Amino acid sequence: MTAAEETVPDEDKPWGEVTPEAARKLLVAAVEAFAERGYHATTTRDIAGRAGMSPAALYIHYKTKEELLHRISRIGHDRALEILQEAAAGPGTAAERLADAVRSFVRWHAERHTTARVVQYELDALGPEHRTEIVDLRRRSDAAVREIIEQGVAAGEFDVPDVPGTTVAVLSLCIDVSRWFNAQGRRTPDEVGALYADLVLRMVGAQK
Amino acid sequence: MTAAEETVPDEDKPWGEVTPEAARKLLVAAVEAFAERGYHATTTRDIAGRAGMSPAALYIHYKTKEELLHRISRIGHDRALEILQEAAAGPGTAAERLADAVRSFVRWHAERHTTARVVQYELDALGPEHRTEIVDLRRRSDAAVREIIEQGVAAGEFDVPDVPGTTVAVLSLCIDVSRWFNAQGRRTPDEVGALYADLVLRMVGAQK
Repeated sequence: MTAAEETVPDEDKPWGEVTPEAARKLLVAAVEAFAERGYHATTTRDIAGRAGMSPAALYIHYKTKEELLHRISRIGHDRALEILQEAAAGPGTAAERLADAVRSFVRWHAERHTTARVVQYELDALGPEHRTEIVDLRRRSDAAVREIIEQGVAAGEFDVPDVPGTTVAVLSLCIDVSRWFNAQGRRTPDEVGALYADLVLRMVGAQK
Repeated sequence: MTAAEETVPDEDKPWGEVTPEAARKLLVAAVEAFAERGYHATTTRDIAGRAGMSPAALYIHYKTKEELLHRISRIGHDRALEILQEAAAGPGTAAERLADAVRSFVRWHAERHTTARVVQYELDALGPEHRTEIVDLRRRSDAAVREIIEQGVAAGEFDVPDVPGTTVAVLSLCIDVSRWFNAQGRRTPDEVGALYADLVLRMVGAQK
């Protein structure tokens, strides 16, 4: 274990929720392969090879390539929903909760940008049942943000002529961080999160 | 020619700038294939087949698959730059020019969302020289928007603590329209453009 790895808390270990270790390694390999070459250009053989396993070993954990994508997409969308619902249910004014939601959601899309790209761009590759399940999680994420904005409007804190459209725009702004964020770039995930929280408060016309 | 096709002005014919007709058809087929399956999962044989041509006929117009992607990316980025520079050089206040830039840029990403996804998401698949050329076009697009924002700040029209970060966010918000826009959805490209122009004026703290 390197010093850098030692400083990473357990909860930040990528896909730490996936057990056993072989299943976790295969998921990490699948995310990398899908992000680099796209879902359709990746074979289960490629994924097993990246994880240093045989195709037969992969098959013990995942029956199909789509099962791997579904697992990645499900965990990613569960985490996104959790971040947004936690912020929505938190203490404080609507402005404080919206800023908190944006900061956390942006940080996740910046820190986990490779995963986020797969989660956000490969929806069409899911089978119909899995797609329905994921679309439902996305609706609930949307609802969590819309709720904060509606509460801010009701409390006279925000001025928003088009709540559904503004909700889509806020989420979209955060999601696209995964496309352009560069870990070697000038800004840290926290800095982007702080900038975006300010921009979103301006979008909803929050009173200063 | 169908009635629907007749109503489309020449300049809106997809890839009308590409001649001869066979080269244009191949480009349209390549955009569809790349958008559906990703660049790496698409072969030149797939593209020729979609266009109703033989691989040998494709080879007359494009030597490699990367040449097709470069052509798509180049035309898309040229158009994006043209839209933003026209708006930047237009008459009116900084607020009017920024609103115009956002409306036009959003409309392009909504109307041409399939093309825009290929243009925005397949940059890593370009060869090194082509990538350098496209990155330069992107820098110039960024500069066109930054210039309007800087002028608005200098004129006291805008209040923007972080001009480079806000420029990235404005472009990012517009680009991500290509990911979520649905031609069967509730909003037209013009409606999304109008909503986004208003949101961006709020982001830069434009005086009403």
